[in-house]
Amino acid sequence: MKVSELGEFPLIDILAGMVEESRNDSMPAWQNLIVGIGDDCAAWRVEPDHVQIGKIDALFENIHFKLDTATWRELGWKVLAINMSDIAAAGGMPRYALVNLALPPDTEVENIKDLYRGMLELAGKFGVAIAGGNISRAGEVSIVLSLTGVAREGRLLSRSVARPGHQIAVTGSLGGSAGGLRLLSQNLDLDIAARDSLRTAFMTPFPRVAESLLLVESGVRCCIDISDGLVQDMGHICEQSGVRGRIHVDRVPRHPAITANFPMDSVLMALSGGEDYELLFTASPETMAKVNRALTCPVTVIGEIVEGAGVELLDSRGRVFTLPQTGWDHFKAGRRTTK
Amino acid sequence: MKVSELGEFPLIDILAGMVEESRNDSMPAWQNLIVGIGDDCAAWRVEPDHVQIGKIDALFENIHFKLDTATWRELGWKVLAINMSDIAAAGGMPRYALVNLALPPDTEVENIKDLYRGMLELAGKFGVAIAGGNISRAGEVSIVLSLTGVAREGRLLSRSVARPGHQIAVTGSLGGSAGGLRLLSQNLDLDIAARDSLRTAFMTPFPRVAESLLLVESGVRCCIDISDGLVQDMGHICEQSGVRGRIHVDRVPRHPAITANFPMDSVLMALSGGEDYELLFTASPETMAKVNRALTCPVTVIGEIVEGAGVELLDSRGRVFTLPQTGWDHFKAGRRTTK
Repeated sequence: MKVSELGEFPLIDILAGMVEESRNDSMPAWQNLIVGIGDDCAAWRVEPDHVQIGKIDALFENIHFKLDTATWRELGWKVLAINMSDIAAAGGMPRYALVNLALPPDTEVENIKDLYRGMLELAGKFGVAIAGGNISRAGEVSIVLSLTGVAREGRLLSRSVARPGHQIAVTGSLGGSAGGLRLLSQNLDLDIAARDSLRTAFMTPFPRVAESLLLVESGVRCCIDISDGLVQDMGHICEQSGVRGRIHVDRVPRHPAITANFPMDSVLMALSGGEDYELLFTASPETMAKVNRALTCPVTVIGEIVEGAGVELLDSRGRVFTLPQTGWDHFKAGRRTTK
Repeated sequence: MKVSELGEFPLIDILAGMVEESRNDSMPAWQNLIVGIGDDCAAWRVEPDHVQIGKIDALFENIHFKLDTATWRELGWKVLAINMSDIAAAGGMPRYALVNLALPPDTEVENIKDLYRGMLELAGKFGVAIAGGNISRAGEVSIVLSLTGVAREGRLLSRSVARPGHQIAVTGSLGGSAGGLRLLSQNLDLDIAARDSLRTAFMTPFPRVAESLLLVESGVRCCIDISDGLVQDMGHICEQSGVRGRIHVDRVPRHPAITANFPMDSVLMALSGGEDYELLFTASPETMAKVNRALTCPVTVIGEIVEGAGVELLDSRGRVFTLPQTGWDHFKAGRRTTK
């Protein structure tokens, strides 16, 4: 059935029913939710001793995804994951989501249910409550999600507190998402394990929410998530902290499926591919030692913060490494910017 | 200059500068804002003794507006106003906004500054802080805004507490927005005063935030804002409250410029035009008397809540009035739904 046959309000009823079924009253977000989907506003009680944090991010058809390669379930997961990753990069726990859907009238209702299934699957892992939303018609599909979270005020992670003497580290490995994009857009014939892991990296990244809390506990205060690409996101830290970031390119952990399948490009993909949703953070060597004991995921020190400005890339012999392109600018696509 | 010439990050810098300049530290939202535009998440301290409320709503090009008739300043005002109206309908004060902009690359930077000027103009009237946002490329312009507010838990307004014996009332007058849409889409040659007032009703409605707080103080608990159209929004109250709403059509206040310029259609425009962003509420006659003393804007009692279900329209002789169409369904546009 098409959404134009069903109508807006029956569609909202279906989605509200799915969200209500996913309700988990053992989680703080659900316990504190006073008004969910179906009134003018969602309403929730505020948790004590925490500050609220908020983020909005979006997936637009033909910009961020194509419907012939992405599944609706993946889109639902991803639009929540990219927001959760920002909440994690700020040191918070995600709580309440509001969803703005824009849909062509001939969209299948079952597809929108799949979208919500993907969103609710990830939401359920962290007790996030889908508290409300809005639906309208449009020529192309877009999904905008706004997410709040909670954090302790003195323990917020930010981009602006990197200091000379800090080490630079990253969780997990990089370039997998760029590999997944290439896999899907070029319909490459890789082995099944590589296809699976690259597609997962690109379409259903797992936000580092648990790791973020351990970083905060370990004493880390400077963090960003890698959405624009390692070098560009490092640039954001350097600019806002007033420091220079030195990255040793050979130490940057590359996703195994890109080193195996794209050996010529894997360094570039890891440095500037973007959308990896790993955490990039800086801390003193003492704090970094605590981080290594606390986190169970891979943590790799890839460089250090020094006096100065900008991002410096060094190869294995300590020579300056020049990057032809360094990440994503939404309005200069096709000619990615070099900062 | 086009946004594609400027680039994403310089554009964000410009908008962040405009928002920072509009900062007003005498207002609670700004006082409590810890991290604004420029980090992964916005962060704010939570106000004591209040619940948080949240809403997301959007304007999409060629669905909600056309760029040849709307100004960018109007779009900025309107996207905030429609969210503020929902916060008002819930009995809250608006606080923090997050903005998702999707723009074609050839959009003029000056236009986006105008968009923010309009948004900041309205935000400034109520101390709303634009706390963050996200920008991406798209084929058509869309502006999605997520707004939080604060309300007292026991004093939230909702759609679900209308009771038999309540009177039904509405603030201001209706149909002006429908008149404005007709004015712009048909490029009508009305007199300047009518053009101004209808355009204002459609493009820059003034959300009833102050009135909402007075409704709450007066004891009102059941409210919705008129976005889909009087009859349809009354239907939402009836459905969620399990009651029947009886509306006396001749008592519905019509915008003076529609009675003057569209005499044949003015009743229909007032009943089902939508987007008026007036408050529709129900209360006992005693509470309604308090409301009349408290509010300085026009308040008109247009009907009463009775046992039953659905919305009943009566003409001046008490006969059932049948409406050919009753409001907006986003997916059945062109064939508006009758509930």
